[in-house]
Amino acid sequence: METKYLHTIYFEDLAAAALSQHMAKSNYSKVFVLVDSNTKSHCLPSFAKKCGFDIDLVIEIKAGEEHKTIQTCTTVWDALSTLGGDRKSLLINLGGGVVTDLGGFVASTFKRGIDFINVPTTLLAMVDAAIGGKTGVDFEALKNQIGVINQPEMILIFSDFLATLDKRQIRSGFAEMLKHGLILDQGYWNELIQLKDFDQSKSHIKRSTEIKSGVVEADPFEAGLRKKLNYGHTLGHAIESYFLMEANRETLLHGEAIAAGMILEAYLSHELTGLSKLELDEIKRVFLDYYGKISFDDQEIESIIELLQHDKKNTHGKVNFVLLNSIGKSIVDIKIAPELLKKAFAYYAQE
Amino acid sequence: METKYLHTIYFEDLAAAALSQHMAKSNYSKVFVLVDSNTKSHCLPSFAKKCGFDIDLVIEIKAGEEHKTIQTCTTVWDALSTLGGDRKSLLINLGGGVVTDLGGFVASTFKRGIDFINVPTTLLAMVDAAIGGKTGVDFEALKNQIGVINQPEMILIFSDFLATLDKRQIRSGFAEMLKHGLILDQGYWNELIQLKDFDQSKSHIKRSTEIKSGVVEADPFEAGLRKKLNYGHTLGHAIESYFLMEANRETLLHGEAIAAGMILEAYLSHELTGLSKLELDEIKRVFLDYYGKISFDDQEIESIIELLQHDKKNTHGKVNFVLLNSIGKSIVDIKIAPELLKKAFAYYAQE
Repeated sequence: METKYLHTIYFEDLAAAALSQHMAKSNYSKVFVLVDSNTKSHCLPSFAKKCGFDIDLVIEIKAGEEHKTIQTCTTVWDALSTLGGDRKSLLINLGGGVVTDLGGFVASTFKRGIDFINVPTTLLAMVDAAIGGKTGVDFEALKNQIGVINQPEMILIFSDFLATLDKRQIRSGFAEMLKHGLILDQGYWNELIQLKDFDQSKSHIKRSTEIKSGVVEADPFEAGLRKKLNYGHTLGHAIESYFLMEANRETLLHGEAIAAGMILEAYLSHELTGLSKLELDEIKRVFLDYYGKISFDDQEIESIIELLQHDKKNTHGKVNFVLLNSIGKSIVDIKIAPELLKKAFAYYAQE
Repeated sequence: METKYLHTIYFEDLAAAALSQHMAKSNYSKVFVLVDSNTKSHCLPSFAKKCGFDIDLVIEIKAGEEHKTIQTCTTVWDALSTLGGDRKSLLINLGGGVVTDLGGFVASTFKRGIDFINVPTTLLAMVDAAIGGKTGVDFEALKNQIGVINQPEMILIFSDFLATLDKRQIRSGFAEMLKHGLILDQGYWNELIQLKDFDQSKSHIKRSTEIKSGVVEADPFEAGLRKKLNYGHTLGHAIESYFLMEANRETLLHGEAIAAGMILEAYLSHELTGLSKLELDEIKRVFLDYYGKISFDDQEIESIIELLQHDKKNTHGKVNFVLLNSIGKSIVDIKIAPELLKKAFAYYAQE
């Protein structure tokens, strides 16, 4: 596995130094920082201190997945244009997954592409969203329907931003870390489930970035290996989309939705790809302990299964899953009939 | 110069055969054809006959540069989504530059990128817009502000579509062919200016596609050589944008705007990069003969120069031009002060 890609992720003090060096050699005409209403107040001042240059071109978007839309892109393109952005401008995305996904897409398409740097401020973005070059926005409540794959110049991880998050958000990011263990590294899974406190997850960020970026490096356009990162996401995304659309359902955080997805897909793995009953029950117990249980009625389950048809991973009308052979070992491109999905929801619901 | 890229352009009967072959080996889940209101009635029936497979998924947009917007993209993304498009779908763009530019951008961003094929139906699109992978839309009246560079799977040229065009549109495309001669091939320029009739330009399409695709192949991301294709476009785009924005000015066709741009930039070339007075006057005479003269008042000239600041080719606040050393020989990255631009307009206006 090549290591070129890994070298673009920098941590803590080294990140600040790497940024200074990059700026010195790049001769950018203008440097824009994209923030949302939260990161503007909680992260921008400390980022400005860390990065050691004046930040005067700040573009702000509203916080929250419901603003990850083409309409928001339009306001950012407009701001870049109005503030005199050109092809040699740089966009620094300072925020969670919404800011890094949307900002990456805006940069990749402004004047057919300008440089961008991701500075993730949530655990979820640090271990997942900010890495790998998947940029984009939601479209008609379908997650990430519009976007491109394009890599940032660098990814800078400052773990002290995590102090600005509430426990629910940390827990959401932690779900992606657990996923890294489930799909590729049983030892890592075992380490993580023994943590006494989410705050301890901080010291494991580097391991998760290594797993994610190693996979992306080997398969940037998702021909095979990279698909493993979608474990829990086929049903998880459908659940997340459903909650986003339904006015009477509170929006789920991404990690909360994929936690449910990972239990459901563990059930499918037990039925189809050899995951033992013991490991299945362990996975269910771990995720229910951390994330609690969501109640779905029959009508909702139908709607969620209907939404699966729009999942980007599906082609030719079939629903494609990543499943586990065992904890730490996964397999891609398993096609599944809708009936079995209902059984998975039944297993999820049972005591 | 590599020839891989050239091999993706097919002409006439060979184009139909190449398409059939590509479809047979590609296993697309669905094939969509993007048309505008004109190409739907004038080109789609004959294209269906040529291509030899059923076309049932047709997406229609309104014709005209004023519809080359993100709003129109939204309607096409929505249609793709509603009609069950997935990652293995194909989009065939059947139309002029608006359809190939916008369709290419929609395909490049739908589910982070699906395959697309360009079937240009105007002379302009055949010799220029459909080739080279520049996709995108206008934004707030600025040309091609939002887009990506992404190559089509193939480009199919059927010159009988030209019979559906009026003379004004043929003439617009012819301007890009003249540009190919000016920047790189004096012999080609001399051939073209001796044509008695625009209909004869048909037999020169192949030569223009060779010049354009040769340049793109050598420099896909416009690091140097490809910039030469922007001759006449720095001022031409600003003029085109200005006419697009101004309610009391009729929208110019692209070729009409860059014809004026090529005269203006020939003047700059005479002043700065050694183009002889004789060749300058020849260029002015040829373009005025074909395209007539546009009248600009002082206020309009100011506005057009103001618009130059937003040209994608400019960085660090400087305006970058491609200029001619002589007919057939050009040079890139010449920076010019606004005062000289006013003199160029004065030369353009004088009898």
